[in-house]
Amino acid sequence: MARLVMKFGGTSVADIDRIRNVACHVKREVEAGNQAAVVVSAMAGTTNQLVDWTRTAARFHDAREYDTVVAAGEQVTAGLLAITLQDMGVNARSWLGWQIPIRTDAAHGVARIDDIDGAVLVERMETQNQVAVVAGFQGIAPDNRVSTFGRGGSDTTAVALAAAVGADRCDIYTDVDGVYTTDPRVVPKASRLEKVAFEEMLEMASLGAKVLQVRSVQMAMAHGVRTFVRSSFADTDAPEHHLEPPPGTLICDEDEIVEEKVVTGIAYSKDEAEISLRRVADKPGVAAAVFMPLAEANINVDMIVQNISEDGSLTDMTFTVPAIDFERASEVIAGSREAIGYQAINGSTDVAKISVIGVGMRSHAGVAAEAFQALAARGINIRAITTSEIKISILIDASYTELAVRTLHSLYGLDEN
Amino acid sequence: MARLVMKFGGTSVADIDRIRNVACHVKREVEAGNQAAVVVSAMAGTTNQLVDWTRTAARFHDAREYDTVVAAGEQVTAGLLAITLQDMGVNARSWLGWQIPIRTDAAHGVARIDDIDGAVLVERMETQNQVAVVAGFQGIAPDNRVSTFGRGGSDTTAVALAAAVGADRCDIYTDVDGVYTTDPRVVPKASRLEKVAFEEMLEMASLGAKVLQVRSVQMAMAHGVRTFVRSSFADTDAPEHHLEPPPGTLICDEDEIVEEKVVTGIAYSKDEAEISLRRVADKPGVAAAVFMPLAEANINVDMIVQNISEDGSLTDMTFTVPAIDFERASEVIAGSREAIGYQAINGSTDVAKISVIGVGMRSHAGVAAEAFQALAARGINIRAITTSEIKISILIDASYTELAVRTLHSLYGLDEN
Repeated sequence: MARLVMKFGGTSVADIDRIRNVACHVKREVEAGNQAAVVVSAMAGTTNQLVDWTRTAARFHDAREYDTVVAAGEQVTAGLLAITLQDMGVNARSWLGWQIPIRTDAAHGVARIDDIDGAVLVERMETQNQVAVVAGFQGIAPDNRVSTFGRGGSDTTAVALAAAVGADRCDIYTDVDGVYTTDPRVVPKASRLEKVAFEEMLEMASLGAKVLQVRSVQMAMAHGVRTFVRSSFADTDAPEHHLEPPPGTLICDEDEIVEEKVVTGIAYSKDEAEISLRRVADKPGVAAAVFMPLAEANINVDMIVQNISEDGSLTDMTFTVPAIDFERASEVIAGSREAIGYQAINGSTDVAKISVIGVGMRSHAGVAAEAFQALAARGINIRAITTSEIKISILIDASYTELAVRTLHSLYGLDEN
Repeated sequence: MARLVMKFGGTSVADIDRIRNVACHVKREVEAGNQAAVVVSAMAGTTNQLVDWTRTAARFHDAREYDTVVAAGEQVTAGLLAITLQDMGVNARSWLGWQIPIRTDAAHGVARIDDIDGAVLVERMETQNQVAVVAGFQGIAPDNRVSTFGRGGSDTTAVALAAAVGADRCDIYTDVDGVYTTDPRVVPKASRLEKVAFEEMLEMASLGAKVLQVRSVQMAMAHGVRTFVRSSFADTDAPEHHLEPPPGTLICDEDEIVEEKVVTGIAYSKDEAEISLRRVADKPGVAAAVFMPLAEANINVDMIVQNISEDGSLTDMTFTVPAIDFERASEVIAGSREAIGYQAINGSTDVAKISVIGVGMRSHAGVAAEAFQALAARGINIRAITTSEIKISILIDASYTELAVRTLHSLYGLDEN
């Protein structure tokens, strides 16, 4: 017997047929003797429609009213799934955020969960084997009004609920069947990871492998919630196959990963822009002069590289920003030219960031050197490098992206046989 | 200064443009110095869609889950109207049934209001002049779950809320501009009534002048809520005209109707069927033998007429049922033939019921006699008659319906000059 939280996103509950498919997954777990709470998103398209209405009603609007409107989507799905489960003979009931309650802070529209009282849900699991169908993405704020968590918030609901009810695992059913060593569209030999450590997943998620919201992964890590990403779609046309649980990737503590590779995956992002400031005075406070105005303009700076130039008194400074912020960032820097005192500014959006990720790097030296060597052997020029304990990020010309990913994927033994 | 509850139905809030039109009506009242609470239905079509999904999910379903699903429609409209009002500079906030709270009984799907706590709403009206935008049709049941009131339930919310906040008037904005002396499609000279007594409205509503749910009228009468039926559509294309409050019909205590006519209106219904039992033994208990089985089959019997036949020991019994129940009622009676002991059964769905309504009848004799005479003069045969203090209902052949309505409308001086 295990206690599970199962989460289904918008495409998994897009219509009544899909909701029935979801109910089959839930029933399978109940029949296997497990206890289950299910978190659902709004039907695909519903949230967009509701958000669109709030925007049409008024360009700037009260976040509390926005929350009241958009939370209705998950409410509908929760009720419909409860009805469907009951129809299949599974004891189930829907729960809205305010009923459990899922208490949040006062930041309507982007609320954070303060506390979930899991007691009643656990009691009903244990005494009646009742499945709790929980409306995702919403809670109740201190003002006794509905609050929502921002896009992807149902993942957060699922992970937080798993922590609150002491679940053995949180299953995120989605439209992919797990986390891959890299993008299979770039490297056909990419393979699904059986397990990936929380820290690795955080690096992958923020780098574009958008299987799971970064915030949910952080929460899973903080509470030690083992999170299993799997597909809800595999067996749509063969309901009887639901008896076979779909495979996926377990996101867990690195201690649980027995046979650990040095490198777990290769991520890439083309949504980067590079800005270089030439011949900046190498004096205290210059970094602040560059990056404070960017922070004030709400522009995220990612990689930062600073080189000493020939004569030692001047420096070159290179950093990356999201490509969509490139123009704005360039203007901000130009506006601070006097304060910074640089000689020239160059920039390009024609760059890509390749990241090599793996908790195994902690205990292996030379991983970065191998990467540089392999890329050099392919004639790929490295524009900038940053490293952390479990990640090496390399900025290159965008046209070399696929080649670089394939090269590194092979280099670290990730190609599937 | 007046305190108003304003209610807008589904067609009045069908899209963002219509919601803006509603907001203009509300703003007009606020600018006139009035306090307002607004009750809204779901956008036209939404409730049907939600109900349809619950039915597709399972033919027989948990009414608590049904309520969770369908209540989402009004939640969306309440939030959108609050946003729109705020955008127009009107202080407003949405309220869901559970937030006020509107406490109901446990009859999910057809819940009745037990209690509304109007204190917070009144306090905000008085201290902030804040408009309460209340999701209609829903409350919270003793199990702490959402309950709904059945179709048309937003009218009930409005009237009950008006009683709870001590409103001076409850304005029901709808797609007609009031209550007419009769159906204007039948009698072009029909005119809008300025005022109509609660009791008269009850008779008219149950007879097919479906301006307002019978239950809401009953509630308005019980709590003495002056209810004004008016159109929200009149001035869609000319927003500035909103400054002119649209005309309508006030439903009020008869004491408030100063210049009272004997007859207020002529209603008719073609959805009737007549069943006659010939030569029934005129003995105690025979009426029960006829009507108990019909009641058990959930068939509403309306008019009942019993005549003594020639020899005094046998009787003819005629009654009406809704036309859709005619076949079923005939079968029920045939099945009870032995217990009843009648000689023959006749029936027809080709009949219509014409009703003459007016609280003035109480103090005027001869109203019925005039009607019979006028109909006879037109060659209209009367099949059955029932009377109450304020109503005369006459069953005739359906083909004479329009002639009868016009004849009576003229007879009682209701034709507009």
